Amino acid sequence: MAPRVLICGEIVWADEDVKQLLEPIAEVVCIDSPTRADFLDAFKPNGKYHNVVAIFRDNTSADRIGYFDKEIVDGFSPSVKWIAHNGAGYDQIDVHACKAKGITVSNTPGAVDDATATTALYLLISTLRQYSISERSLREGKFKPPGLNAKSHDLTGRTLAILGLGGIGMRLAELAHAFPMRIIYHSRHKVVHAPQWCEYFANVEDMLAEADVLSVHVPLNAKTVGLVGEKWIRKLKKGSIIINTARGKVIDEEAMIRALENGHLASVGLDVFPNEPQVNPRLLEFPNITLVPHMGTENQDTQRKMEVRALTNLRDFLTVGRGCDVVVEMK
Amino acid sequence: MAPRVLICGEIVWADEDVKQLLEPIAEVVCIDSPTRADFLDAFKPNGKYHNVVAIFRDNTSADRIGYFDKEIVDGFSPSVKWIAHNGAGYDQIDVHACKAKGITVSNTPGAVDDATATTALYLLISTLRQYSISERSLREGKFKPPGLNAKSHDLTGRTLAILGLGGIGMRLAELAHAFPMRIIYHSRHKVVHAPQWCEYFANVEDMLAEADVLSVHVPLNAKTVGLVGEKWIRKLKKGSIIINTARGKVIDEEAMIRALENGHLASVGLDVFPNEPQVNPRLLEFPNITLVPHMGTENQDTQRKMEVRALTNLRDFLTVGRGCDVVVEMK
Repeated sequence: MAPRVLICGEIVWADEDVKQLLEPIAEVVCIDSPTRADFLDAFKPNGKYHNVVAIFRDNTSADRIGYFDKEIVDGFSPSVKWIAHNGAGYDQIDVHACKAKGITVSNTPGAVDDATATTALYLLISTLRQYSISERSLREGKFKPPGLNAKSHDLTGRTLAILGLGGIGMRLAELAHAFPMRIIYHSRHKVVHAPQWCEYFANVEDMLAEADVLSVHVPLNAKTVGLVGEKWIRKLKKGSIIINTARGKVIDEEAMIRALENGHLASVGLDVFPNEPQVNPRLLEFPNITLVPHMGTENQDTQRKMEVRALTNLRDFLTVGRGCDVVVEMK
Repeated sequence: MAPRVLICGEIVWADEDVKQLLEPIAEVVCIDSPTRADFLDAFKPNGKYHNVVAIFRDNTSADRIGYFDKEIVDGFSPSVKWIAHNGAGYDQIDVHACKAKGITVSNTPGAVDDATATTALYLLISTLRQYSISERSLREGKFKPPGLNAKSHDLTGRTLAILGLGGIGMRLAELAHAFPMRIIYHSRHKVVHAPQWCEYFANVEDMLAEADVLSVHVPLNAKTVGLVGEKWIRKLKKGSIIINTARGKVIDEEAMIRALENGHLASVGLDVFPNEPQVNPRLLEFPNITLVPHMGTENQDTQRKMEVRALTNLRDFLTVGRGCDVVVEMK
């Protein structure tokens, strides 16, 4: 009997790949639960998800059944052994609960690097050059807003500090190096394969003091909530900029807003927010910042790449017992 | 007696440089004419600009006295021998009238490359990824607009066609190559110093047929008005994008709008318009395009670089009889 696989989310761009990768070797079941209660019920003996061995998951499923928290994970049939998450960030999955139950979690790290770093580069250009306020001024019939030059700078020659030199941070470093910007970074450890032009700072505060722009690239977890807070923000030079394409909660939003209010920060470029899709209305009062609605990986090329990568991890589990991209907490 | 120099425009960022470059060797006169008539009068014997030998000029002067057209140029004292224009585009100067009168015109080509190419890169990212509509959606309280992925693409791997591989086009090529995009170009001649990854197309229509994005980098002159017209636009693939950071009139705006209306063009990213600061209101009806108010070189770093370059050309004329950056029509 073919192993049962649950698609818990939406496969939009890789429909053909599902047919090629999974259908020959698995029975593919799609989520059909309007509520969390229905979802949990379906894992009971004779339920529609009973005996599922692996789950493809993405964040769209949270709209109906919520996060894969301990309650959900504990409710899975014992047969479930693999969760192939479609996305780089897996903060919607309780990986410790998974580990305790013998479930391995994979994500799609490499697939998101290019698109997310491009979003960060866009925010970097938009904030340093003040294009967001400029486009709004044009669309209000006023063409150029006054005093723009005094508030805007070239990227070339400025210093970009990258907090977390993983795949996305490294990709942004490559794109910004083309100008070139000076690239400095802080990670838990020096990245051995980083090129020489990426300068490592073991002390994060030393790095912040040198930065014109700080770009945040750390995952959200218990240790990183509010990581970029009052103290770190004040270590940045007056007139600095913060870019966030990671997760909203990694920054202390109140501290960031205070720094915008008193001019310590010249601007921020945000793709992520603490309570998406809600955006703190106070942010909308700053004309000099750029705000986009979690666009990091939003485009058909990257969406397909991510879906295929998650499906491939799932297929590898089915065929050879283990997929790639196992999340760090499982290693 | 020190030679007289007229500052016809605004020196904002290079005040100190004026003191160092010009004041020791020249009598610096600043424009003080509310109208074109007053300006022309002042070049007459005993007028306030009489005996001026060189003029620093920028486009802000047009607000008061209009372009440096034949009437203005013919009105200059015979003493005027050099116009150091602050800007890359010098379409506001009648260079043929200047040449006929023995006046040399210089511009500031290299100084604008980085900032203008960065603007083009911004428009490239914004249109391919559909960030402009996304930010507006967020600011209207709606977070992500629906159906975005179907309309957006990664830059990486797509083909960028550069029309005019001068300084700005080449700089954009370098920045886009970082992804990498495939870079193809058409210029009047193959650019001998272009890197191997820039593919030359002698036939512009062959180039257009291969492009995902066309970026325009030719100067505005009698030969380039409406250069990108119906025929060329239709040689682009359906779903292509046009970026313009050169001059609005290089594109046939009506043909471009028709192509947006019927979906032949997926988007356009415009920094320049035929009748700035007027923007054709029909453009504002397309939610999928990005429009910025001639931001090409708008930032203090590049503004200062341009001012210093124009002042240096003027100083070189005064000290050694000839400045750099003489415009091509004079060569």
